[in-house]
Amino acid sequence: MSDSPYLLTPGPLTISLRTKQAMLRDWGSWDADFNRITSRIRERLLAIANAADSHECVPMQGSGTFAVEAALGTLVPRDGHVLVPQNGAYCLRIARTCRILGRRVTTIDYAEDAAVRAEDVDRALGADASITHVALVHCETSAGILNPLHAVAEVVARHGRRLIVDAMSSFGALEIDARRTPFDAVVASSGKCLEGPPGMGFVIARREALERAEGNSHSLAMDLHDQWVYMKKTTQWRFTPPTHVVAAFDCAIEQYLEEGGRVARGARYAANCRTLIDGMGNLGLRSFLPAAVQAPIIVTFHAPANPRYEFKSFYNAVKSRGYILYPGKLTTLETFRVGCMGQLGERGIGGAVDAVAAVLAEMSAAA
Amino acid sequence: MSDSPYLLTPGPLTISLRTKQAMLRDWGSWDADFNRITSRIRERLLAIANAADSHECVPMQGSGTFAVEAALGTLVPRDGHVLVPQNGAYCLRIARTCRILGRRVTTIDYAEDAAVRAEDVDRALGADASITHVALVHCETSAGILNPLHAVAEVVARHGRRLIVDAMSSFGALEIDARRTPFDAVVASSGKCLEGPPGMGFVIARREALERAEGNSHSLAMDLHDQWVYMKKTTQWRFTPPTHVVAAFDCAIEQYLEEGGRVARGARYAANCRTLIDGMGNLGLRSFLPAAVQAPIIVTFHAPANPRYEFKSFYNAVKSRGYILYPGKLTTLETFRVGCMGQLGERGIGGAVDAVAAVLAEMSAAA
Repeated sequence: MSDSPYLLTPGPLTISLRTKQAMLRDWGSWDADFNRITSRIRERLLAIANAADSHECVPMQGSGTFAVEAALGTLVPRDGHVLVPQNGAYCLRIARTCRILGRRVTTIDYAEDAAVRAEDVDRALGADASITHVALVHCETSAGILNPLHAVAEVVARHGRRLIVDAMSSFGALEIDARRTPFDAVVASSGKCLEGPPGMGFVIARREALERAEGNSHSLAMDLHDQWVYMKKTTQWRFTPPTHVVAAFDCAIEQYLEEGGRVARGARYAANCRTLIDGMGNLGLRSFLPAAVQAPIIVTFHAPANPRYEFKSFYNAVKSRGYILYPGKLTTLETFRVGCMGQLGERGIGGAVDAVAAVLAEMSAAA
Repeated sequence: MSDSPYLLTPGPLTISLRTKQAMLRDWGSWDADFNRITSRIRERLLAIANAADSHECVPMQGSGTFAVEAALGTLVPRDGHVLVPQNGAYCLRIARTCRILGRRVTTIDYAEDAAVRAEDVDRALGADASITHVALVHCETSAGILNPLHAVAEVVARHGRRLIVDAMSSFGALEIDARRTPFDAVVASSGKCLEGPPGMGFVIARREALERAEGNSHSLAMDLHDQWVYMKKTTQWRFTPPTHVVAAFDCAIEQYLEEGGRVARGARYAANCRTLIDGMGNLGLRSFLPAAVQAPIIVTFHAPANPRYEFKSFYNAVKSRGYILYPGKLTTLETFRVGCMGQLGERGIGGAVDAVAAVLAEMSAAA
């Protein structure tokens, strides 16, 4: 099925054939052969974050949002208070989750093209001693912004508060080093920079924070403490895991390490991002973010200011040339997004730029 | 990878190669081609339960337990009171979930080899007007018991209460007909009798019950009402779906319909169950349940009363002959379980009986 379009989306993305072929086998979820896969994944994810000494890796069924909710519900006590510096939809989702879970929440609101500033977090923590946790989105894919994880983490640690990081679209490509950057939890999923299929998330949680989290959770299925304790005891998942997804994720991590791990993966995405922004620039398509805050994960472009441009026809025409783009997510401007991740074939991301060029010419909708 | 062992477990089970091959393609979760797959699955699941007029099908990421928790959290109001007639681990899990979710819960407790009796439910509802919902496990796979869904449903309806059915290991093989049997929700998952990969569940929920459920949920990710409203509006899942699992589940349902649907699937499992019980009987291995309450899904056998028998060696030896069995789940007796589901190859379930016979002879551990 190599004729299916490449996904230029922030996950699901195009994964390698080898990863997909790992799904051609059935595994017993109780069997030792399968449990060895789960253990290997957990160990390797910890190693990627240099976190084996201090943290535990707890996988969670479902999409990344399930893992984020599990982390908030399990690690923030019921009387906790979460500060969310917010510059996009995924930050707002964290704030909404806290409200539904009955956890007090305060936001610091930024414009959609502005990165979070550590000094604002510093000021907010200094002004309100009731704040127990800060929840930061590392790469906010609504616009594609990189937030300053390390600087925020140092501020949070200096105030003696705890940090939960939504690293969904950065983990594995951008630096997250537990020996350097203090955090209680980093949450990500199988289907992003590690280039596995979607279907499971995971939390890299500080051991000591997990140990104190018994009884916090609002949910049975999403109780990270319970999942961890059961997995330690049995090496199994508490409830049926998505066995084929787990096996494929293991295979994807194998390829990640073969490629050269975080440095190589990050460099590939950064090169894709430069090629993309340069190529689209040559077509007159401007990226939305200032270069200084652009993460090399997904790029938001202004729609062509041409009355003949219309997103749906543009999307379908680019798709028929083999590339699936992503709609914009900004509240006021007309934009579209292009991901820098995944297995993009021989022509690479340049193929996508060529497809966009051909379609704009066809539509007579040049920027 | 056809040399991997057959799974005689109650899900994950061995699925067809065609179903697994459906995972060899990447899908954009925002794309119309993928959304058509989601819509087709929802329609066909409704049709299998004859529920298209009265109910909606809402899929949910995660294992079946996630979908059960979603149904309880969304459909039972915060001041609701759930009656759980309980004869096994899955009933107890429902009761535990209700407690964690802060829903009042009462159980009627049975022995592990006794089916739920509709007259007990009748009496309990008559005695306590505060009970709003009954939660019934249709096939309790702890021992393999079939509970009398239709009779319990009629009692619940007569009392004007609402019924939530955990049909995880029965949906698709045993009769569940919304035109005949009144229920508010039937919950099942991709990886059981419909023979898809594990990774998503679904709830067949009465439309009117869903409409009244806004704001009930304890969770963002598991809010069935929110998932339904969003899906109606956009045809998309709210949060990233396990795209490969969804595509394979669609392919599995296609094969289910080709095989002849519920009647054919149920007949195949029933024949497997008879062959299994007869064959194991010839080896001196007795099944645990009375025939009248044995569901044709999974069978519990007494361990051989032979001092040389030991489950782990037995399991590993049968596995090396190509079949993965399942441990028992009874609290006091030593047992093991064998599933009747899945794609069992040319030799069918008889191959498993032969493997057990050979291993017991090898171990000199005949029953």
